[in-house]
Amino acid sequence: MDAIIWENNHLRLLDQTKLPGSIEYIDCDNYRIVAEAIKRLSVRGAPAIGAAAAYGLVVGAKQIEATNRKTFLEKLEAISGELGATRPTAVNLRWALERMMMRVSTAPEQDINELLGMMLEEAHSIYQEDVQSNRRMGEYGQELLGVGARILTHCNAGALATAGYGTALGVIRAAQEKGKQVSVFADETRPLLQGARLTSWEMVQEGIPVTLITDNMAGYLMAQKKIDCVIVGADRITANGDVANKIGTYGVAVLAKYHNIPFYVAAPLSTIDMCLSAGEEIPIEERNPQEVTHHGGQPMAPEGVQVWNPAFDVTPNSLVTAIITEMGVVYPAYVENLAKICGKNTK
Amino acid sequence: MDAIIWENNHLRLLDQTKLPGSIEYIDCDNYRIVAEAIKRLSVRGAPAIGAAAAYGLVVGAKQIEATNRKTFLEKLEAISGELGATRPTAVNLRWALERMMMRVSTAPEQDINELLGMMLEEAHSIYQEDVQSNRRMGEYGQELLGVGARILTHCNAGALATAGYGTALGVIRAAQEKGKQVSVFADETRPLLQGARLTSWEMVQEGIPVTLITDNMAGYLMAQKKIDCVIVGADRITANGDVANKIGTYGVAVLAKYHNIPFYVAAPLSTIDMCLSAGEEIPIEERNPQEVTHHGGQPMAPEGVQVWNPAFDVTPNSLVTAIITEMGVVYPAYVENLAKICGKNTK
Repeated sequence: MDAIIWENNHLRLLDQTKLPGSIEYIDCDNYRIVAEAIKRLSVRGAPAIGAAAAYGLVVGAKQIEATNRKTFLEKLEAISGELGATRPTAVNLRWALERMMMRVSTAPEQDINELLGMMLEEAHSIYQEDVQSNRRMGEYGQELLGVGARILTHCNAGALATAGYGTALGVIRAAQEKGKQVSVFADETRPLLQGARLTSWEMVQEGIPVTLITDNMAGYLMAQKKIDCVIVGADRITANGDVANKIGTYGVAVLAKYHNIPFYVAAPLSTIDMCLSAGEEIPIEERNPQEVTHHGGQPMAPEGVQVWNPAFDVTPNSLVTAIITEMGVVYPAYVENLAKICGKNTK
Repeated sequence: MDAIIWENNHLRLLDQTKLPGSIEYIDCDNYRIVAEAIKRLSVRGAPAIGAAAAYGLVVGAKQIEATNRKTFLEKLEAISGELGATRPTAVNLRWALERMMMRVSTAPEQDINELLGMMLEEAHSIYQEDVQSNRRMGEYGQELLGVGARILTHCNAGALATAGYGTALGVIRAAQEKGKQVSVFADETRPLLQGARLTSWEMVQEGIPVTLITDNMAGYLMAQKKIDCVIVGADRITANGDVANKIGTYGVAVLAKYHNIPFYVAAPLSTIDMCLSAGEEIPIEERNPQEVTHHGGQPMAPEGVQVWNPAFDVTPNSLVTAIITEMGVVYPAYVENLAKICGKNTK
């Protein structure tokens, strides 16, 4: 099940808000459809948003009416701005768009069709590199898991959240492929239930034993010694190793610390934002209160109640046992070791 | 809004599963309707279950066909057994039924009508004493809250969970009545959303500012220094001060400890089970997986997923700052201090 499909010169995005009930794709013949799909979480997960935005920029580029390179690039910049403004927290969105703009704006070609072809190639590269980096991440990460490991994960950092295979779930898949017979506990992840709807579904498809819990059961589960480690994905990691990820991740990290359970973050280098020194600088998206008060259009809370609905939280580096990347597993001290691995990558 | 009403010699229970959408009462002309209402959480909250079961036993007693005291008591014992088996964790259920049975079985009266009248009086006493003890608990507890205190609570330990006024919410009400201008953050409390549906509703009715969050936001809320203390109710407290309460309470307690936030438990002495020495002896009810996988009859998770659905967890005494009772606030060491306060009560 691919979250992002480019075929016949056409972009299709899996509408993940409909899973697991029904499998529907959104035809994206306009970049604004892509922007809307990102905003309403039809496509979600930091790496998937990056790849979708890259393809979205190609869709937008095809819509541009321009006779010269300069006008084309100006209009493209505006489209990139619109796509980049859809969600504030995940850095891969901006990273992918900047990479696309860099590729096209630094190319000497004048012909717009040539530029379009170049952009499509770059989007394909972003997509394919993400799958490859997830595989490498899985290879490195699975070494941290023993035979029969029982893993708690939060939200969905799986094939659906990436170009394929997954970050946190990629590590779990890789361990399974090595015959380690791991099993998974999935936090349901309120308010939008990505754990219940997406992670459970991916694991069931894969034949990896999965047990669903409500978010508030994680502590008791750890106290009962039913968890060997936690693995989550990330939406943005700062230079010091602080991790922005789906709301609730921080609470799970504190609980893991309290119970002496390793807490791992799996993320590609494209999720590391070396421009920010610490987590408090990360913009945290707050979303519509109705995500909390309503389900399937029906109210679950009384009128008049206020709601706080941050989509992400920040886990400080002190709670992170290691960060699993496609270049290897990074341990503290993160300031030094993330700089080293990110430097290595650009060489 | 009363959760339990006895009028015209007839028991009516508010169907709390329908709140806040609609206000419907269940007419209980058969004790099995009461048992079913307790099982399906139409009436819930440890003290409310106790009072409902006491009245339920009166309803059952009226159904008994017996010509002598001995047969009457035998049949009553069987009904009490049925009512007591509805839910395993809250101790108030057993406490109330034992108190009712004790009253009637030790009375010398032979006339069954006289015994019935005595039982009704005893049920009224249980009910009224609960309201009074909540008031006293509120009076003691509010002294722990400063002006403008921002309080996190989990599940519903309010008027709906008791005979009236509430335990945790009673403390908050008392602080409000003293003009302390407190505000409340309510964990929604999955899977059955007692925080979203009931606590939010009670606070809105009362005009106390309330902000609803999903359970997994509590940690980030504390990290942002938006919480001054936590107050929760209890379903059973053992002699050493371990506290069984709604699933998720333990996680909140760990988070409070990590952030140096006081964690208070408000509960009447009827919730303290001096027969059990520690929390691991408390039976923890596991409920239907569909509570987690479905909402409003619609699936939210894929078929094939396993579910773990404990209704309660146990918070060890080391995480409990104080226990607020109707006899005063109890601090560690709990083994000594709970024995003292429970001893005082029986004198």
